Amino acid sequence: MKEKEFLAELEELALLNQTLALLDWDSQTGMPETAATERGAASGYLSGLAFEKQTGPKIKAALDYFSAHNDELSEIGKTVYQVTKKDYEELHAIPKELMVERSRLYSQAHTAWLKARQTQSFSDFQAALAENIRITKELIPYYKKDEATDYDVLLNMFEPGMTTEVLDQVFGELKAGLVKIRQTINEKGQKPDTSFKNRTMTKEQQQFFVKNLVAKLGFDFKRGRLDDTVHPFATRITRDDVRITTRWNEEDFTMGIFGVIHEAGHGIYEQSIDAKYNMTPVYDAPSMGIHESQSLFYEIILGSKRSFWEKQYPHFQKAAAGTFDDIDFERFYRSLKATAASLIRIEADSLTYPLHIIIRYELEKALFNEDLAVEDLPQAWNDKYEEYLGIRPENDLVGVLQDVHWSGGMFGYFPSYALGYMYAAQLLAAMERKLDVDNLLATEDYAPIKAWLTEHIHKFGRSKTPSELITAATGEALNPQYLLQYLTDLYYDVYQIDK
Amino acid sequence: MKEKEFLAELEELALLNQTLALLDWDSQTGMPETAATERGAASGYLSGLAFEKQTGPKIKAALDYFSAHNDELSEIGKTVYQVTKKDYEELHAIPKELMVERSRLYSQAHTAWLKARQTQSFSDFQAALAENIRITKELIPYYKKDEATDYDVLLNMFEPGMTTEVLDQVFGELKAGLVKIRQTINEKGQKPDTSFKNRTMTKEQQQFFVKNLVAKLGFDFKRGRLDDTVHPFATRITRDDVRITTRWNEEDFTMGIFGVIHEAGHGIYEQSIDAKYNMTPVYDAPSMGIHESQSLFYEIILGSKRSFWEKQYPHFQKAAAGTFDDIDFERFYRSLKATAASLIRIEADSLTYPLHIIIRYELEKALFNEDLAVEDLPQAWNDKYEEYLGIRPENDLVGVLQDVHWSGGMFGYFPSYALGYMYAAQLLAAMERKLDVDNLLATEDYAPIKAWLTEHIHKFGRSKTPSELITAATGEALNPQYLLQYLTDLYYDVYQIDK
Repeated sequence: MKEKEFLAELEELALLNQTLALLDWDSQTGMPETAATERGAASGYLSGLAFEKQTGPKIKAALDYFSAHNDELSEIGKTVYQVTKKDYEELHAIPKELMVERSRLYSQAHTAWLKARQTQSFSDFQAALAENIRITKELIPYYKKDEATDYDVLLNMFEPGMTTEVLDQVFGELKAGLVKIRQTINEKGQKPDTSFKNRTMTKEQQQFFVKNLVAKLGFDFKRGRLDDTVHPFATRITRDDVRITTRWNEEDFTMGIFGVIHEAGHGIYEQSIDAKYNMTPVYDAPSMGIHESQSLFYEIILGSKRSFWEKQYPHFQKAAAGTFDDIDFERFYRSLKATAASLIRIEADSLTYPLHIIIRYELEKALFNEDLAVEDLPQAWNDKYEEYLGIRPENDLVGVLQDVHWSGGMFGYFPSYALGYMYAAQLLAAMERKLDVDNLLATEDYAPIKAWLTEHIHKFGRSKTPSELITAATGEALNPQYLLQYLTDLYYDVYQIDK
Repeated sequence: MKEKEFLAELEELALLNQTLALLDWDSQTGMPETAATERGAASGYLSGLAFEKQTGPKIKAALDYFSAHNDELSEIGKTVYQVTKKDYEELHAIPKELMVERSRLYSQAHTAWLKARQTQSFSDFQAALAENIRITKELIPYYKKDEATDYDVLLNMFEPGMTTEVLDQVFGELKAGLVKIRQTINEKGQKPDTSFKNRTMTKEQQQFFVKNLVAKLGFDFKRGRLDDTVHPFATRITRDDVRITTRWNEEDFTMGIFGVIHEAGHGIYEQSIDAKYNMTPVYDAPSMGIHESQSLFYEIILGSKRSFWEKQYPHFQKAAAGTFDDIDFERFYRSLKATAASLIRIEADSLTYPLHIIIRYELEKALFNEDLAVEDLPQAWNDKYEEYLGIRPENDLVGVLQDVHWSGGMFGYFPSYALGYMYAAQLLAAMERKLDVDNLLATEDYAPIKAWLTEHIHKFGRSKTPSELITAATGEALNPQYLLQYLTDLYYDVYQIDK
């Protein structure tokens, strides 16, 4: 066995994955709906080929051989070996009949979830959700290494190395801090004027503004594109073909504009991993949290900054062709950061968003580690919303049925969103020790910002773990105080509160 | 072996082909150019998988088994068996090393052709073209069954059953007839006014008009779409996902409008093959000529008719928002059908187009059957243009270097274009014996026209040969007189010549 053969097999796997990514992108952008069934068959068939290859005899032989002859591998080869081994062991862990059963249950649960949303009744989803939880619990022993609890195993699948012990600590701090900020705002804050936010801005006007903006931020349109979709996402077809998507609302420009900035953050990451890892499993993010740190860094961390909008608002006004000419910068900027408790996670503002995540984290942990009964979930959900946000869902549709994740068995995924947010704020603090970020934003000189992110995060791909990356980039482990400080400064400014 | 297993294997092949079609569509529409190399690798890899499957042990076992147990197959199964066997034998014919060499030579020749176009000099292409011809001649014995000449073997690959004997006859008649019409026009014709043809019509205006039009003609946009490209084409991703593409010229509306009608003709065909053949090799046209008969039927046969444009011109004028309001119907209609000798095939009008094809046919036949030397090709090309069209190319770029086909080893393909044209006119004549086509066009009642084509051509897929289809649909074998009569009537009308 030569390294070259090993890499050639992984390259074929990459070609299959490239194709799968295109099939999926197309099905969410241009494909006629009538073609869904046959598209599903094609994706299913190619996924099967990819799985067979990833767990097949050639990969197994290579892993066996290089386990004994690691010194025959180049530096890159060693990294590729480690990552391939990790994937192989995870994929190989589960007996095939359980995998088939899992797929069947997820598919049923998704159908039940859609039905329950129609009837606005959790009871139509409850049995299927219970089955998803049951099969997940049955599968946990196959994945378990040295994790302390069952839920730790699930966390690990999305954020390698993350534990409930760490999350209990950081989410505890985060929750306390957010509650305090919200309290202060309620007591002393001056509510921004948002009366003009729903003025019409055409799709073409929004597109013109935000495409220029994200190109300046560093998304390379020569190696990527932007399309319309229903559920926005970013996907790498190849390193030189990274596609982002968005939806537009002509009566709410924030949806399309911040949406595109968010996806461009993902896209810039995918375009910037070191080319030496191309066509190997190392060419990817090491976790969902790290990926999300990059989209949120652009969308919320930079995208909430006064210095950023001071430069961009004139461009925005021009793109809107007069619609906002009577709104001065101060009114505009403050309107962007108004905050209020709300029921729907994906519509939440940047202050309350982490509370939505913490609620889900606590409920998932209770389901897997503390025997919360599935039938008690809606009540627990509603109680937490009342406790943390002061509002109570009127029905399950705006409560426990709002997210798709659990219907697809994605337990342990939600914390990634808040982790990414905390990582992003911590990265900004580290970056500001080296760069005058506000000055760069004020002059649209975004290149050093992207270069810093590439140097400290992007380029490594999966060659480092999330905690290795964060510690090396910022000099310390995950620390929620950076996000709290960022949000305190931001919202005190916007709500005109003296410190 | 059960029929079910045989069909399941063919279904996997169909899923691979569906994926390959999407990869190709995307590379010609939205893909960033930088991604070309990796896209090529993905297409190459999947093509290899498709080839392995199509010539693999499962298909071979099925063909062997059902050769001896044909009675175990259903009616559909028998048809599928025949077509699969034909494909298997063709694909299997050539030794692998010759296939590899062929690919290498085609690739080199394409590069040489591009270079020669830059230098406008055939000498930069000559050696590579000679190699393409040499390898094709070497391959002919592997494909040869009972064909009379080498060139017959090549014809057969695109138009099964077609022979030089038939083509010499029909192209001879066609050429004589066209020369006569052109002579009459030159002597007695009134040249149409085309002074307004290059007025600006925006892409959006053209798109609005022609999308409505082809939807009415029968292209189902719920099961397809229209996109922009450089080299227009139609492709079936699946039966319910048929995609057509076009390019637009705002200073020449005929390019986009007739281009879309042409591709929609291909698309309607692909959407209308009997669903019972779906996911099998029978779901396709039996020849390039038959496929082209459908695009040309819509683009030129219907699209040249006075009754068609009488109804459509007001829609066109409205879409153009006043640009053509000063042009009366008569002037507009006649301008569409102006004819003049020209050097470039793809820009030729509907009267001179077949002469461009006949020239290529005669030259290909001379290259393969009559030892025309490659070095003598430019001279022979130019002489024929002078003889048949009365104009002589000033350089090779507007002469022998204009078509991509030979650089890719596609010898025997050109006749398909003229065959399609003759088939289309013959189909119209048969249709008119059953339907009052002019009245249907005058009332935009296109459904019976599409239904007739589906009933006599589309639905059969590859279950019948081209000549079986044409004979059954029209009551006789290929007969060029229908096209000549059509063109005589058309051009005498447009050029105001009394019969």
